[in-house]
Amino acid sequence: MLLPTASSPDKALPLYQRIAADYAHAMAMGTLQAGERMPSVRALMQRHAVSLSTALQMLRHLEAGGHLEARQRVGYFVRNAEDRALAPPREPDLSQPVEGLDPAHFIGINAHISLLLEQGRQAHVHTDIGGCTPPPGLFDHQALNRVATRLLREDPTLLVQGRSLLANQGNHPDFQQTMARHALASGIRIAPADVLSTTGNSEAVSLALAAVCAPGDMVAVESPTYYGLLQVVESLQLQTLEIPCSPRTGMSIEALELAFQTQPRLKAVVVVPELQMPLGARMPDAHKARLVALCAAHGAALIEDDSYGLFVESEQPVRALKAWDGTGQVIYCQAFNKSLAPGLRQGWMNGGRWHGRVQMLKFAQSRNTQTLAQRLVAEVLGSPMHQRSLARLKQQLRAQREGMARLVARHFPVGTRLSLPPGGLCLWLELPEGFSSAALFTTALAQGIRIAPGSMFSNSGRYEHCLRLACTHPVTPALEEVCRTLGAMACVQLGQGVRA
Amino acid sequence: MLLPTASSPDKALPLYQRIAADYAHAMAMGTLQAGERMPSVRALMQRHAVSLSTALQMLRHLEAGGHLEARQRVGYFVRNAEDRALAPPREPDLSQPVEGLDPAHFIGINAHISLLLEQGRQAHVHTDIGGCTPPPGLFDHQALNRVATRLLREDPTLLVQGRSLLANQGNHPDFQQTMARHALASGIRIAPADVLSTTGNSEAVSLALAAVCAPGDMVAVESPTYYGLLQVVESLQLQTLEIPCSPRTGMSIEALELAFQTQPRLKAVVVVPELQMPLGARMPDAHKARLVALCAAHGAALIEDDSYGLFVESEQPVRALKAWDGTGQVIYCQAFNKSLAPGLRQGWMNGGRWHGRVQMLKFAQSRNTQTLAQRLVAEVLGSPMHQRSLARLKQQLRAQREGMARLVARHFPVGTRLSLPPGGLCLWLELPEGFSSAALFTTALAQGIRIAPGSMFSNSGRYEHCLRLACTHPVTPALEEVCRTLGAMACVQLGQGVRA
Repeated sequence: MLLPTASSPDKALPLYQRIAADYAHAMAMGTLQAGERMPSVRALMQRHAVSLSTALQMLRHLEAGGHLEARQRVGYFVRNAEDRALAPPREPDLSQPVEGLDPAHFIGINAHISLLLEQGRQAHVHTDIGGCTPPPGLFDHQALNRVATRLLREDPTLLVQGRSLLANQGNHPDFQQTMARHALASGIRIAPADVLSTTGNSEAVSLALAAVCAPGDMVAVESPTYYGLLQVVESLQLQTLEIPCSPRTGMSIEALELAFQTQPRLKAVVVVPELQMPLGARMPDAHKARLVALCAAHGAALIEDDSYGLFVESEQPVRALKAWDGTGQVIYCQAFNKSLAPGLRQGWMNGGRWHGRVQMLKFAQSRNTQTLAQRLVAEVLGSPMHQRSLARLKQQLRAQREGMARLVARHFPVGTRLSLPPGGLCLWLELPEGFSSAALFTTALAQGIRIAPGSMFSNSGRYEHCLRLACTHPVTPALEEVCRTLGAMACVQLGQGVRA
Repeated sequence: MLLPTASSPDKALPLYQRIAADYAHAMAMGTLQAGERMPSVRALMQRHAVSLSTALQMLRHLEAGGHLEARQRVGYFVRNAEDRALAPPREPDLSQPVEGLDPAHFIGINAHISLLLEQGRQAHVHTDIGGCTPPPGLFDHQALNRVATRLLREDPTLLVQGRSLLANQGNHPDFQQTMARHALASGIRIAPADVLSTTGNSEAVSLALAAVCAPGDMVAVESPTYYGLLQVVESLQLQTLEIPCSPRTGMSIEALELAFQTQPRLKAVVVVPELQMPLGARMPDAHKARLVALCAAHGAALIEDDSYGLFVESEQPVRALKAWDGTGQVIYCQAFNKSLAPGLRQGWMNGGRWHGRVQMLKFAQSRNTQTLAQRLVAEVLGSPMHQRSLARLKQQLRAQREGMARLVARHFPVGTRLSLPPGGLCLWLELPEGFSSAALFTTALAQGIRIAPGSMFSNSGRYEHCLRLACTHPVTPALEEVCRTLGAMACVQLGQGVRA
């Protein structure tokens, strides 16, 4: 067994990280070459005398760090040096967790985001790498259209049926049945009648927060987080508490624990446990269990936004937070905007022990969702056709993420850090201190390129030197030109020479 | 000219009402017989030396009271005695308007309505005359399906296009253009870009209230009003102020004026100016002008729900409140659930001077609506096919309203009063004091009949002796049997002998 190296001097690190550091060092030294296959999980368990879970954590850690790539049903392989040229984003500093908690009120985040979106609209944008919705070409629209046309033929009055014709407040039984069955795969056991159809996951999360919080209450969110969540929190006149989030393992449970001790008005926690947006973190199962128990102990609602779990590239089944929920503390939300059909706006939720109140609010505020969209998703979701289509989409996204990561490594300033998450639609970039993503947003927009600056993902201002890049476009010479332009702008800002 | 009769002793009544009372008396005496044609508007103007507007008001007053029926392009005719057997609902008592204002907090209205809806779901209902959505058979579903299929063929990626492909936050330009043009007919002048697509009108009204009110603020509503509005108000933690509402002319402007003087937290007024739900009142244009000016003077938002204006049976153009809006004080909301396609959930709104904030809230809480539904409504709404289909629907509804009114007159207790509005989907019944619509709801449900009891339409408890009956079903022997059953139950409650 290799000795711990200089690259991991911290003996307090968990075992799997120390072993991973050994392998990373071996790759840096050329002991392990690009393309080489890693030992099997069984071999690693024997070699390091560790458990299955530690061996797997170690491999995933290396994968998350960009050192390994997983090939389905074959194993893990060492990536080439160019791919792993960039360090992963920094872990949050938890040494002073009290100061790290930031009860930001988010007055003005909506105005800030609205302004950025409006500027994006006004400009003539030829390349949008700000938004994270895959372009139409990545979906099987012909199959969807065939099913839609068939549904209208088989049930000709589908578009003119009112809510009262459906038993359960406008939730179609086929949709409910399909969602309950679909959720089983993530370890969720709910009755079909407890599935509530929503307009995407933004409505679902919004309803969840409205159901469990009163104005002035506090909501813990990941930092950085999806700007849509910050908007919802502000629009409901709640306060956000930004909890530090690891780019690998997601929300810090320790920091959240502390928050519960110091913030009596903390009533809800919103988490994207799989492929956290924008970092791409995957929360380990042990953290999930602790998180659910913690929220249950404090009577807080744990709102799980699981829209990206579908994008995880792993052979292991992905278990939702809700799978650990014994007391109804978890409100589960999922949408199919990005995985199945952006145009349908179809999502669903289960409100746990608040389900009755969530249902009432949904009914009061927007009644039922469209039946056609519910039936269409129900028909398509379980079909082998969709499984193939989703597999293709994930493969394509993976190629695009990796291609995009290479372009960033090639053109962005020295010192740029990059997440390379095991799935999903985007990369998170951390540039050297002094870089302003807001300035890049403005100069890039003038060239017809739209990015998502770090300031959209927090109200704390602490991600000004970061940005999110969508990987929804194929990597073409035109996209390389866009990355070259962005990279050059960033280099100029930092006073570095422009690269390749 | 006939002298004022005993039936209208109040000399303070407006002129048109006094003249109308004379004619009503003449009909009761048999001086004017059922089927006789009324003098023309011109002849009435000369005979009573009144203005065009007074003559028209008089005729409409008699029509609203069930004394006359208008036949398109021919004139007004005296209705037969059975049709006008029932008096109209009582006018609200404004003699003590201060006491009439009821700042009800609506704690519990949602729970109450949820309970009634849940009971309705649990029961085996064979006839639902509680809900007011026309059944599928009254719509031209084939035409809708043809357009939907064509849209999917012409624009094959319609279902997989994300929001970012649409210029204006997910509002399709065709939809915006069509709505702006469509609104012109109601006297509304707005730019296409200021049309915001919504999920029905419940979302629109909910967004409007969230945009202009803070928790604890007060909202003036018509009394009685649509229960959905009471739910929204409660769900946003606002307080409602019930403003007395005339079954003929809608919200009392005098009472609202007083409310503004006494309630500093009154920030919004929600009005259904045409075919008010549930009374069926039509607000006269002069009232509309005063209402808009009053809200502008007090800086309050006037939220106009205009979903029933499309159902008005009149040759005169129907002008929206928004047509009088010179300062952006009116937030206009409209949905096509009941007139075009209940299954599409398509509506729209213009937020007046709060449009930016409404747009921001919509984006934060549920993003965009579905593109297919927007395009479908845009294609269908302006087509001659839809004009014919809407005319047929209105004709059918009129026959059903009149048939239902006859059944009520025949079977319900002596002393029952009834609105017979000039359009729309329902009747409002006022039964003698002592009648409990909640009790009728329960006994009727046990027989498989669902009604909407008066308690759903107010939190004040003052409509316990009232109920709303939907006129969405064809008048068949089976429906007569249902009315006979309901009438008998009501007679038993009141200790009256069961009728025919």
